[in-house]
Amino acid sequence: MRIEILCTGDEVLTGKIVNSNFSWMSQRLEDVGLSVIWGTTTGDNREDLLAAFRLAAARADAVIVNGGLGPTVDDLSQEVAAQAAGVELVLHQEWLDKMRDFFTRRARQMPENNIKQAMLPATAEMLDNPIGTACGFAVDIGPARFFFTPGVPREMKRMLDEQIIPRLLAKSGRPGIIRLKRFHSYGIGESHADALLTGVEDLAEGVKLGFRAHYPQLETKLTIRAEDEASIQARLAPVEAAIRQRLGNFILAEDDQTLESVVLAALNAKGHTLAIAETFTGGQIAGRLAPLPAARDIFRRALVAPDGPALAAALGLAHNASTAEIAEQLRHSAGIALAVNIALDEGTDRIDLGGAINIAIATPYGTVTRYARILGGRDWVRLGAAEMALDCLRRHLQGLPVDERIDFEKT
Amino acid sequence: MRIEILCTGDEVLTGKIVNSNFSWMSQRLEDVGLSVIWGTTTGDNREDLLAAFRLAAARADAVIVNGGLGPTVDDLSQEVAAQAAGVELVLHQEWLDKMRDFFTRRARQMPENNIKQAMLPATAEMLDNPIGTACGFAVDIGPARFFFTPGVPREMKRMLDEQIIPRLLAKSGRPGIIRLKRFHSYGIGESHADALLTGVEDLAEGVKLGFRAHYPQLETKLTIRAEDEASIQARLAPVEAAIRQRLGNFILAEDDQTLESVVLAALNAKGHTLAIAETFTGGQIAGRLAPLPAARDIFRRALVAPDGPALAAALGLAHNASTAEIAEQLRHSAGIALAVNIALDEGTDRIDLGGAINIAIATPYGTVTRYARILGGRDWVRLGAAEMALDCLRRHLQGLPVDERIDFEKT
Repeated sequence: MRIEILCTGDEVLTGKIVNSNFSWMSQRLEDVGLSVIWGTTTGDNREDLLAAFRLAAARADAVIVNGGLGPTVDDLSQEVAAQAAGVELVLHQEWLDKMRDFFTRRARQMPENNIKQAMLPATAEMLDNPIGTACGFAVDIGPARFFFTPGVPREMKRMLDEQIIPRLLAKSGRPGIIRLKRFHSYGIGESHADALLTGVEDLAEGVKLGFRAHYPQLETKLTIRAEDEASIQARLAPVEAAIRQRLGNFILAEDDQTLESVVLAALNAKGHTLAIAETFTGGQIAGRLAPLPAARDIFRRALVAPDGPALAAALGLAHNASTAEIAEQLRHSAGIALAVNIALDEGTDRIDLGGAINIAIATPYGTVTRYARILGGRDWVRLGAAEMALDCLRRHLQGLPVDERIDFEKT
Repeated sequence: MRIEILCTGDEVLTGKIVNSNFSWMSQRLEDVGLSVIWGTTTGDNREDLLAAFRLAAARADAVIVNGGLGPTVDDLSQEVAAQAAGVELVLHQEWLDKMRDFFTRRARQMPENNIKQAMLPATAEMLDNPIGTACGFAVDIGPARFFFTPGVPREMKRMLDEQIIPRLLAKSGRPGIIRLKRFHSYGIGESHADALLTGVEDLAEGVKLGFRAHYPQLETKLTIRAEDEASIQARLAPVEAAIRQRLGNFILAEDDQTLESVVLAALNAKGHTLAIAETFTGGQIAGRLAPLPAARDIFRRALVAPDGPALAAALGLAHNASTAEIAEQLRHSAGIALAVNIALDEGTDRIDLGGAINIAIATPYGTVTRYARILGGRDWVRLGAAEMALDCLRRHLQGLPVDERIDFEKT
């Protein structure tokens, strides 16, 4: 099935906002085995919108239109859709009632111009928007099925997942449901992960394996297609088990979890507070944990310094104190202390510039340390070191070894 | 003049990368008074590229194509351009020589498949790429002028500025040169700035004023068009002076400067080192300064804690120590100390949730303080507080008052 995405709006066309809706939609469709073959961006004007609808109708089987469903005069999607479909705009009473209810629940009066958002092409099928006032709709224009979505990202995302993807899968002759299962790891490169997971797709029918590398993390994606929820579960189970077994301790989070959320949950479960000392990072490690609401009762203190001796001095230690000694000293401020000392090599900032990373985690039960070297230039070393430090903390809290060798390490 | 931007490549079409090239190009063209009327995205396949070129040629006067100029088989731009223009691909000896030289200077042998990058449509005009191996080119396809640019952002940006925009301006019957002058400020809202600057456009011919708000900063943009450099200078001078006078102390940086670079330069000029103490930010203030190469000899230490009492305790002070006392204590670690204590109001994270900000700057000559309240929810308060703290430091280092009331402040 040939799918086109058509993004509308002057803010997108003039570049005032970066069009991340497009990439999000396209990735999501790829994830479920659907492919986007064309992308169009137009501004808020009638002639261009109409031309874009007609061109898209001629080259695609399904078209997802994003934006232009708002209450103001420059929101033209419904009107031009009706024109392109050759039908009238009619009031959709069900949506009007929902909108009035939406405002009532917020103790507000619905402005009259919101009525416009309930005017849909006569032949349209309404697509529910449970979190906003812009209802989506589907309508045929020429031989293509058009799906209209709101420009607000969270509204668009939910509508795509809940309303549009099931309809596209049905239309493409592949009914049933789709599940996306994701594993996040740190320390295994994409080609290594690919080799480790050879054959897992064959463990069940309807399973597709994919990767998305965003250094320092790698995302391993599993798409499962089946007739119903029970079959999804039955197919997913053996593949999921194989992935967990093969990627092992490197899996740091799954699905919507993040490394930060996993670390904070583990600290919270054990009732531990946390103090952090870091060099060279500018406080990036604390910066990833401390602002999160879940860190409220956990984060106690962070100390940031340019290098090891400065960090030691700040804690009243001798200049040559080890990272372990630094972590142990810092434990006066919290139940667990994480100390990370990064020494960048001398030299020009090039792809082969490296850094030495010393990590120490001090707990009531003792102190563990980790040493590694990473290459890749200033920012790459910094990013990798912060990730490694948080992942060591995750491993230690989960009772796993902190010193399993990773692919990015050089000796 | 009607301009279309055509982005090519499977990575963009499938959403693997967010298309920030499009928004950058479109903004840049807007900045010089040129308007993009259509955007197209296609993958790396011959039929779709050819169709996209023909459609763009029919609706636009000028088309900027991005991507597809690489040395590999899936880079098809030159080939399909030649086909659409109805001419042969020919070897462009000048570019081949440049490429060989490019590799020689890096002590490498040019791979044979790079020759492909010197094959241009016979009627094409070469566009120089001084920092890469993909040369750009301009060629007529039907009634439209096409400009082909590399996908690598820094190569594309330079080619757009140096090669393409001057040609587009000439083509649009507005020869001459264009200068973009930018002022960055914190504390004045867009509509307030607009009111303050009423009439400055009339101080010289060929001047256009614009704004780009990216909270917490506001960018005031001046586009000047003139025949030559001398006229640009002559026109710019009175307008620039008026803007500096009207926005006054709120201007924190100009053009490519940032608040961080201005602060570090001022500290460096005075030979001061810096220590930072912050609450609620997760170390965001230190995180903006410390990782910069210019901070190497300036940044001494940062201390991050959840709240004022924890910060005071970490410095060996009484729990109820003031922010000024905290800054003064911290001055044992550096020439200048910046302490920022943010107390978020209790309550749900909503748009009307506020926070109280206490800032103190301790120097060898004394201590200055600033108090403010900002509304806008958790992240908004955090961002605003970090900005205000750095801007107070900038003001103090520049001998300006730190307590001028800003538009985002509520009492």
